[in-house]
Amino acid sequence: VSSLDPMNGSGNLMDFLDEPFPDVGTYEDFHTIDWLREKSRDTDRHRKITSKSKESIWEFVKSLLDAWSGWVVMLLIGLLSGTLAGVIDLAVDWMTDLKEGVCLSAFWYSHEQCCWTSNETTFDNRDKCPQWQTWSELMTGHTQGAGGYLLNYFLYIVWALFFSFLAVSLVRVFAPYACGSGIPEIKTILSGFIIRGYLGKWTLLIKTVTLVLAVSSGLSLGKEGPLVHVACCCGNLFCSLFSKYSKNEGKRREVLSAAAAAGVSVAFGAPIGGVLFSLEEVSYYFPLKTLWRSFFAALVAAFTLRSINPFGNSRLVLFYVEYHTPWYMAELVPFILLGVFGGLWGTLFIRGNIAWCRRRKTTQLGKYPVLEVIVVTGITAILAFPNPYTRRSTSELISELFNDCGALESSQLCDYVNDPNMTRPLDDIPDRPAGPGVYTALWQLALALIFKIIITIFTFGMKIPSGLFIPSMAVGAIAGRIVGIAVEQMAYHHHDWIIFKNWCRPGADCVTPGLYAMVGAAACLGGVTRMTVSLVVIMFELTGGLEYIVPLMAAAVTSKWVADAFGKEGIYEAHIQLNGYPFLDVKDEFTHRTLATDVMRPRRGEPPLAVLTQDSTTVEDVEALIKETDYNGFPVVVSRESERLIGFVQRRDLILAIKNARQKQDGVVSNSVVYFTEDAPQLPASNPQPLKLRRILNLSPFTVTDHTPMETVVDIFRKLGLRQCLVTRSGRLLGIITKKDVLRHMAQMMNQDPESIMFN
Amino acid sequence: VSSLDPMNGSGNLMDFLDEPFPDVGTYEDFHTIDWLREKSRDTDRHRKITSKSKESIWEFVKSLLDAWSGWVVMLLIGLLSGTLAGVIDLAVDWMTDLKEGVCLSAFWYSHEQCCWTSNETTFDNRDKCPQWQTWSELMTGHTQGAGGYLLNYFLYIVWALFFSFLAVSLVRVFAPYACGSGIPEIKTILSGFIIRGYLGKWTLLIKTVTLVLAVSSGLSLGKEGPLVHVACCCGNLFCSLFSKYSKNEGKRREVLSAAAAAGVSVAFGAPIGGVLFSLEEVSYYFPLKTLWRSFFAALVAAFTLRSINPFGNSRLVLFYVEYHTPWYMAELVPFILLGVFGGLWGTLFIRGNIAWCRRRKTTQLGKYPVLEVIVVTGITAILAFPNPYTRRSTSELISELFNDCGALESSQLCDYVNDPNMTRPLDDIPDRPAGPGVYTALWQLALALIFKIIITIFTFGMKIPSGLFIPSMAVGAIAGRIVGIAVEQMAYHHHDWIIFKNWCRPGADCVTPGLYAMVGAAACLGGVTRMTVSLVVIMFELTGGLEYIVPLMAAAVTSKWVADAFGKEGIYEAHIQLNGYPFLDVKDEFTHRTLATDVMRPRRGEPPLAVLTQDSTTVEDVEALIKETDYNGFPVVVSRESERLIGFVQRRDLILAIKNARQKQDGVVSNSVVYFTEDAPQLPASNPQPLKLRRILNLSPFTVTDHTPMETVVDIFRKLGLRQCLVTRSGRLLGIITKKDVLRHMAQMMNQDPESIMFN
Repeated sequence: VSSLDPMNGSGNLMDFLDEPFPDVGTYEDFHTIDWLREKSRDTDRHRKITSKSKESIWEFVKSLLDAWSGWVVMLLIGLLSGTLAGVIDLAVDWMTDLKEGVCLSAFWYSHEQCCWTSNETTFDNRDKCPQWQTWSELMTGHTQGAGGYLLNYFLYIVWALFFSFLAVSLVRVFAPYACGSGIPEIKTILSGFIIRGYLGKWTLLIKTVTLVLAVSSGLSLGKEGPLVHVACCCGNLFCSLFSKYSKNEGKRREVLSAAAAAGVSVAFGAPIGGVLFSLEEVSYYFPLKTLWRSFFAALVAAFTLRSINPFGNSRLVLFYVEYHTPWYMAELVPFILLGVFGGLWGTLFIRGNIAWCRRRKTTQLGKYPVLEVIVVTGITAILAFPNPYTRRSTSELISELFNDCGALESSQLCDYVNDPNMTRPLDDIPDRPAGPGVYTALWQLALALIFKIIITIFTFGMKIPSGLFIPSMAVGAIAGRIVGIAVEQMAYHHHDWIIFKNWCRPGADCVTPGLYAMVGAAACLGGVTRMTVSLVVIMFELTGGLEYIVPLMAAAVTSKWVADAFGKEGIYEAHIQLNGYPFLDVKDEFTHRTLATDVMRPRRGEPPLAVLTQDSTTVEDVEALIKETDYNGFPVVVSRESERLIGFVQRRDLILAIKNARQKQDGVVSNSVVYFTEDAPQLPASNPQPLKLRRILNLSPFTVTDHTPMETVVDIFRKLGLRQCLVTRSGRLLGIITKKDVLRHMAQMMNQDPESIMFN
Repeated sequence: VSSLDPMNGSGNLMDFLDEPFPDVGTYEDFHTIDWLREKSRDTDRHRKITSKSKESIWEFVKSLLDAWSGWVVMLLIGLLSGTLAGVIDLAVDWMTDLKEGVCLSAFWYSHEQCCWTSNETTFDNRDKCPQWQTWSELMTGHTQGAGGYLLNYFLYIVWALFFSFLAVSLVRVFAPYACGSGIPEIKTILSGFIIRGYLGKWTLLIKTVTLVLAVSSGLSLGKEGPLVHVACCCGNLFCSLFSKYSKNEGKRREVLSAAAAAGVSVAFGAPIGGVLFSLEEVSYYFPLKTLWRSFFAALVAAFTLRSINPFGNSRLVLFYVEYHTPWYMAELVPFILLGVFGGLWGTLFIRGNIAWCRRRKTTQLGKYPVLEVIVVTGITAILAFPNPYTRRSTSELISELFNDCGALESSQLCDYVNDPNMTRPLDDIPDRPAGPGVYTALWQLALALIFKIIITIFTFGMKIPSGLFIPSMAVGAIAGRIVGIAVEQMAYHHHDWIIFKNWCRPGADCVTPGLYAMVGAAACLGGVTRMTVSLVVIMFELTGGLEYIVPLMAAAVTSKWVADAFGKEGIYEAHIQLNGYPFLDVKDEFTHRTLATDVMRPRRGEPPLAVLTQDSTTVEDVEALIKETDYNGFPVVVSRESERLIGFVQRRDLILAIKNARQKQDGVVSNSVVYFTEDAPQLPASNPQPLKLRRILNLSPFTVTDHTPMETVVDIFRKLGLRQCLVTRSGRLLGIITKKDVLRHMAQMMNQDPESIMFN
């Protein structure tokens, strides 16, 4: 076949891919990658290795290693992110307790570990043991009294301020990219954008350390989003071990997608949920191969975490629950109401948080990030300490709210009035009237709910690592538990009402308030992130039973619908848009009736498109064009009159090629003619040496006609991951559409501010 | 914006979509759909409804109904496929038992139901009760003796032959498409191919009935694949209720993808696995919206099935298992060996089955489908009856093999020698020496394994509904159980060996043979279908615990790698290729170095491309072109000299338009000139009326340059779902590449028979 013959020059893309000069084919910071080109390069690399592998045994072994490198990277990501998650969990546990006291037998023990190892711990007072002393006990010797309380209060605030100050300072000084949840940026990076350093080693280190500090400080934030960022940093780190991944931005993104799955997997102990999260929420290009590898990485990470066993219960999941009662049809009503609440919370949170972040960006506020963190931490600590439900860490709170009240439960929430004649087995306790502890818990929970709702809006987006899964789930769990207790008490006191009559006879265990907490948590998380399938699967993995999928789904769907009615964007998309990242969302449907001709540049009245001709431009002209314009590339045409397109040349490659030629190639001067044709004509010796640049010319640029509907153009950009597309009419070049143009047009059509789109 | 102005004619695609003549924009049987056009049409429909919805309340309600119709369809699919699966399960249960005997108290009870309702059933003899009589008991009154055995044997064969004869006759006479598993065809349909009637009402009815008959006949086949086909038929049925789905082949396929998920969901009781199966194995275009809807349909279907409760245990899953012991690292060795076995079985099965099916297609054999089914059923019944493990239904067999031996188990497989002094709780039984029953079971299982391996190869592909999940799992489960018992006995008798020393002290329960059966089943299923993630998730849903994911994954991955080493194709792809369906697999990677110019037609030396000109072809010319060629469409160029492309017109639309014009439009005669330009020139009255056809012209045909690497072209075809693509060089039309050309080229490059590709 003719094209297989390297002599006729048609295999130019392959010659080009041999990287004639260093850096040809790489991208600048804050630019978009060309997915098709990356894929092409990888296939070419693969082809080379395959053909070489037949030459010698050593090459064959190398080709095998290359084929396996993907799995090795996954294994390493799983091991490292599982280990980091375990270390973070242990450190957070210890430092959270450090705010309240210290373990005398070994200061590096957390409260729970301290009392475990103690012999004097009784079952009833699991969290009281002489080895664990609060700061006031240690300093004054008193355990009771206002003085001790105030001292503890004061030290709680001091520790919180210390942790958060340390966190924000580390972020400011060493790794500014380590702040926030990281998921909006990772989504953008996975869609093909380059942000150098965002997934660097330095970010990995600082994010891990500051995440521990931020969570320990007691701020209303979680570690789940940042764990995804940490896992992606691990992924990026291990990519650099293999040129297959480090030199190809497309392949690198496959690894990062899998790393994101591993991150969620360790955050919740839910490997399948992690893979679906990566698929549904984070990834852009997710081939089947990646699905399988993500699953592997997620499993390795989950098992590494389990063997570290930071929760000390050899459970994989963060909130392990087991309920003993089924749910009843009538309970769908409160579940759906919780869904509505979740949707409203999602809307409120997104609007409030975005408004506050915009204010931070545009006003003086943004200039004092350290002060902001200190102030918010101070307010949080002052308000959180008096309420037992906000004083402890948020994940402990959620865990307690999810729990079913067994007979041995000593929590205040389980302070029911027991029937002394009860002879039932321990895990099948009938509904009972609430005792005073439950009523106290109820108003404390109500206060905690209001506090969490308000403070979370101001916390997310500060210059420290902050995830919003845990705070969102906490809001939902509190609301759910309150509703659950209300329904339970109603069913107990009014079991003759028609709705309770069928399923709630006296002495039956018919309402599980913990289930309501779980449904509420799912609803609130769904309202904020708009995840659906992955959310339900994560929750399913937490409970391990299909029984509760219907309640969870009812709440998640309701919440999504309610929230969508107020605005289509989830919190991550809202932050992407706020930051103006060039992200072409797969979920947005473009339904307007515009055509390519309406979007392409040059528009009517604008100067014509900057093009090169194939055989009549001089080096000088090209340099002038590069200087005058800032386009990322130029179409090459046969001649300016015919406007017949022959290819596209990248600005970066052009600059490198001319620089290289001027340095190394004799006779190339300013008035040398640049040839993009197959053969430069034989010129008389007096003429300056021609510069042949066909090998940096992309001979298969993507074109559409001017009549192509924009919805098709948007589809093509999304599915093929293009950077730009040329517009032709009956074979004549008319204009160009870049990704930026597409995004701007979409924003315009949705009446948004088109100027907010950041880079090219 | 200019294009929004309907007067300048640039919005032609929209005019075209108004369907000026009936059937314009539809497809013929055995043709490929154009995904981009379908999507465009749907967006347009959506746009119309949205703009209308502002006009009146009624239109607004209609638009709401339209938006909700997707969910309604999913609900209906879930309900119907769940119901059908329940009915099939019940009928299969009854008819399988009918081969052996009948219930006297109510003849429509299966053996199990019969003895449940009996008062005389004791726990030890759960399956013996006076109401249930074998045929020999009923006819001769004897329960023992050679005569009774032979009579039962004879009647077993007669019933089997009767069922399978009925099944094959019904398929032959009423619905030839109802045979096989259906998954290869559904994959092809979902990729955009039209096979009319394949998902019709008639197929649905006959497949449901014959599936019951085929499974009951005792043939080595399962109901899982056909259930996917049945669910897709339901999906297609409900599509016809809504014009949104019935009139758009692209949208219809979204519904079918979700229906496939519902099918697997009811087959195994695994909704998440079902969705992943649809995503990984069956679907072609799977947007996120479909993911969520599939999940909904799968859940509804699973819960409908559960409320029918065909297994009488209110479990959702087909094989519910619960193990009490963890697995140990050293057990990974036998698990990986089972994976190797699974891979070898997969290779053997695929090669053997494809060879046999090819023989059936090419020799006399294919002409006697009824006889073939009768003969295979006869052999199966004769060989199956004497062995208790093949006599019963395959799913019962698998269920027993998966089970852990509890203290109350009466099965032969659990005939261990008990220690009379044992005081352990009932579900924590230490390893015991095998009794005589276990040894009998072992050689019976070995015989059953050989029998199943051979007979399944000949059974799959006959003209009756037949799935291969269950037979594959049975092969693996038998092999796994045998290995499991061997390891268990080795560990019991040699617990001083170094490998057992650490984890298997005397009196410990360290090996669960049921787990080996499950791992073996996963390995064999993986070897045959090459599913990975969905397989592990389905198995995970069966056990409901993350504990066993590592063994399952180790086996599934090993099996896939071993099988892939012998050939990349799974059984479905192999059948697709055998049947020559035009299926562009997402998983195949095209890595050859060819260019578009090598693939496009016309090739060198062939007559030039058949094109139309925009303003100089007469109706006569067009009709001649249609008559002489059988291309699906023609490019339209400015003139034959310039070869500048302006659009593409579909053959079908052209025929319809000319027919319509000849009938209805005065003055259009054979020598009328066909105009594809915006305005036809004003001609003198003497000239015949021009025929304006711009509105059937697609002004945005897809083009690539001749230098585009074929890997990019393949990618574009896959991702955008194109039917054809035009090839240009510097704006001149050079040729055309159709999906068929791409497939043929890929087959050529892989040294396969390129002529096997069936249709266009």
